[in-house]
Amino acid sequence: MRCLLWTTLLSASISFSQGHLSEKQIQQAAALRDTAIKESQAYDIVESLVVEVGPRMAGTEADARAVIWAENKLNELGFDKVWKEEVRFPSWKRGQEVCEIVQPYPQPLMVTALGGSIGTSEEGLTAAVVEVASLEALKEIDPSKVKDKVVFISNRMERTRIGTGYGSAVGARVHGASVAAEKGALAVVIRSIGTDDHRLPHTGLQRYADGVRKIPAAALSNPDADLLQLALKRAPVTIKLTLGCSESGEAVSHNVIGEMTGREKPEELILLAAHLDSWDLGTGAVDDGVGVAVVTETARLIGQLKQRPRRTIRVVLYANEEQGIWGGRAYASQHQDDVKNHLIAAESDFGAGAIWAFATKVDPAADETMAQIAAVLEPLQIQAVVEDAYGGADIGPLMKLGVPVVSLMQDGTHYFDIHHTADDTLDKIDPATLNQNVAAYVVFTYLAAEADIRF
Amino acid sequence: MRCLLWTTLLSASISFSQGHLSEKQIQQAAALRDTAIKESQAYDIVESLVVEVGPRMAGTEADARAVIWAENKLNELGFDKVWKEEVRFPSWKRGQEVCEIVQPYPQPLMVTALGGSIGTSEEGLTAAVVEVASLEALKEIDPSKVKDKVVFISNRMERTRIGTGYGSAVGARVHGASVAAEKGALAVVIRSIGTDDHRLPHTGLQRYADGVRKIPAAALSNPDADLLQLALKRAPVTIKLTLGCSESGEAVSHNVIGEMTGREKPEELILLAAHLDSWDLGTGAVDDGVGVAVVTETARLIGQLKQRPRRTIRVVLYANEEQGIWGGRAYASQHQDDVKNHLIAAESDFGAGAIWAFATKVDPAADETMAQIAAVLEPLQIQAVVEDAYGGADIGPLMKLGVPVVSLMQDGTHYFDIHHTADDTLDKIDPATLNQNVAAYVVFTYLAAEADIRF
Repeated sequence: MRCLLWTTLLSASISFSQGHLSEKQIQQAAALRDTAIKESQAYDIVESLVVEVGPRMAGTEADARAVIWAENKLNELGFDKVWKEEVRFPSWKRGQEVCEIVQPYPQPLMVTALGGSIGTSEEGLTAAVVEVASLEALKEIDPSKVKDKVVFISNRMERTRIGTGYGSAVGARVHGASVAAEKGALAVVIRSIGTDDHRLPHTGLQRYADGVRKIPAAALSNPDADLLQLALKRAPVTIKLTLGCSESGEAVSHNVIGEMTGREKPEELILLAAHLDSWDLGTGAVDDGVGVAVVTETARLIGQLKQRPRRTIRVVLYANEEQGIWGGRAYASQHQDDVKNHLIAAESDFGAGAIWAFATKVDPAADETMAQIAAVLEPLQIQAVVEDAYGGADIGPLMKLGVPVVSLMQDGTHYFDIHHTADDTLDKIDPATLNQNVAAYVVFTYLAAEADIRF
Repeated sequence: MRCLLWTTLLSASISFSQGHLSEKQIQQAAALRDTAIKESQAYDIVESLVVEVGPRMAGTEADARAVIWAENKLNELGFDKVWKEEVRFPSWKRGQEVCEIVQPYPQPLMVTALGGSIGTSEEGLTAAVVEVASLEALKEIDPSKVKDKVVFISNRMERTRIGTGYGSAVGARVHGASVAAEKGALAVVIRSIGTDDHRLPHTGLQRYADGVRKIPAAALSNPDADLLQLALKRAPVTIKLTLGCSESGEAVSHNVIGEMTGREKPEELILLAAHLDSWDLGTGAVDDGVGVAVVTETARLIGQLKQRPRRTIRVVLYANEEQGIWGGRAYASQHQDDVKNHLIAAESDFGAGAIWAFATKVDPAADETMAQIAAVLEPLQIQAVVEDAYGGADIGPLMKLGVPVVSLMQDGTHYFDIHHTADDTLDKIDPATLNQNVAAYVVFTYLAAEADIRF
């Protein structure tokens, strides 16, 4: 991503009078920002979700409890309207997961099944291991080298602030099984797509290509991937992999939606997104309990003002993001007819780090108003960057339908230490940083809801 | 512990001529020190142990393989004599371990059985939880409050450089079960005795008191202990605990011993200790693969000199330290008759941190020689401290028989993040720091083997 600063642009050619926001509106946003820093209840919200529900993989009984929790919480916090919308998807369940080196150096390896993977037989699968350095290397390899073997993709994700290392490594997770299967492999194990060195493997979605034989797919923790590499340097290695996971039929969950109704243009929506589901290994504190707390608390704080902003603030807590953006796609499909009412959207789903940049993907006519918003964000150590905003996974389908987005970009330096692992727990959230996130969201949300402009 | 520096003493009253070491001996030690920094093979040794053997809980088949590995490695590295001595002990095996909150907020808790614990029934044990702040609080509590309940001891270990936090917290692990059982509890779960925030609980030995009913004992990871505390703040909590562990009869292992024979006084021994066994959860890289590598490489480097030092260097890789210092006690018992030949001992078993201090427990007549040794350690950023050396667990029984000891004290700030967890893996070892350890050990060992003095 390019990260050219807007600063030059700002100082050179823009003054507040050129945007569509009044001094009074800007002062109100600044006051909300300062209130969020001091009085945000975001931590209480995520603590409540983690302690009272915990892991909530889409389609499970815990996911259903999370939906009830969300409806209750939005009502309790004074939203004007709260409802849910159905989302259907194929569900998947995890079972036992065991991996071990059986020859020549018997010892266990910590493994987890990738989401959507088929299982092995009950007795497990025992085969020689072939290491490949990356998905690209696997694509090039001669099939005779991997036939009837377990392919081990050993590339390691790079740590960066904006998460670019994830994008370049995750292909091994998503496509590794099918690429290996096409060449005759029996299973694929990958080095976890993560930046930590703990014995907690990273799960995440993998997708079988159409028409290709399905084979089991799993991830080793980074220390276990190191160990397997060292063993392979010494001698041929045989491993045994036992996975009890399986597809388990169609399931139903719900997008949970709450609104603070606009006082002048209630049909015009500022959409704030997060996802309610989580992977099963952790407690979903950071992914995406943080997002749920940030967007919920943002609407609550704005709802505390003496009057509602001009437009409606709609919080959508999406179902099943993790297994294929099912909630986001269902929402876009169900709201095709009123998509034009969605003036702009933002999503909080990149961990618990501080927001350091504000990026937009809007009509150039809105640039000056965005610059006014950026100026109110600046005391939070947030830079405005000239760059097309990514938006977020759940609002991606709305973006495709033309809804403008902004990104309040978080520091993701440490996010992939715990992403999709058992280590996604409450202690990884710093309350002050969480409040900085809320402060940024209230500034953007309030001003977007007040601005007399389409984006 | 007091940490008064020897520095004053050194500069005020001691010059090299007052010790028993010659300038030539000191120069040789300094040369060995510098060689260790540059050419130590300690990392290769620990890598070999971790990759080729891995976890090696005393009494297991892997422990037997570790004994063979050790004999082969000492022979391969050119020790003059290598042999093993039998050690017998009651063995213990781990089984399944599952814990979950069943009411009112169902979710899993990451748990591990404490070493020596009995198991639950196969169906597990379901009961209300009572939190107590510490072992001391449990001792004072009215039995009616814990009868037929699971006691949860929630005190958290403090992080310190010298590991004092361990000593003050570990009582909950060692004695919690019997204190709880005496008051009628069904089981005990403790907050892990560890300083990290990962979902990897810390195992470790617990001891049933004589005549007290045995109840299951387990540890929750720190994030899970946090979660249970937060749940208990909201409502009464019921958990289900299933442990498949059990005692499993007498087992046999071996202390593995290697010597570099002294050229003038071969019967006089400088004993270097580490333990060969590990807990089963991790790979035993740090606890105590590091120690095995440091003491083995120390003897190897000294063995590379053109001539052996005056005295014999004996490396003892002890069996079953983790479950009750069985190897250390067996050695002291088997060597009662030649205990006087053990001139001095040192043990490496405190993680992978740098050595920062040199402490001794010797005859005051040896102080000046120790000060000479301290001066050669100084370029390694090692201070001499006036303090009775702790020695080490395995050499504790020798100390009781009057053998003098030194402690090359390691920085333990991060040791208890991984101690007794699955996270005890090779990546936690920094090769340069490991070599600093070896450099310190070669200085001490060579000079102790050369000095014309008893300690």
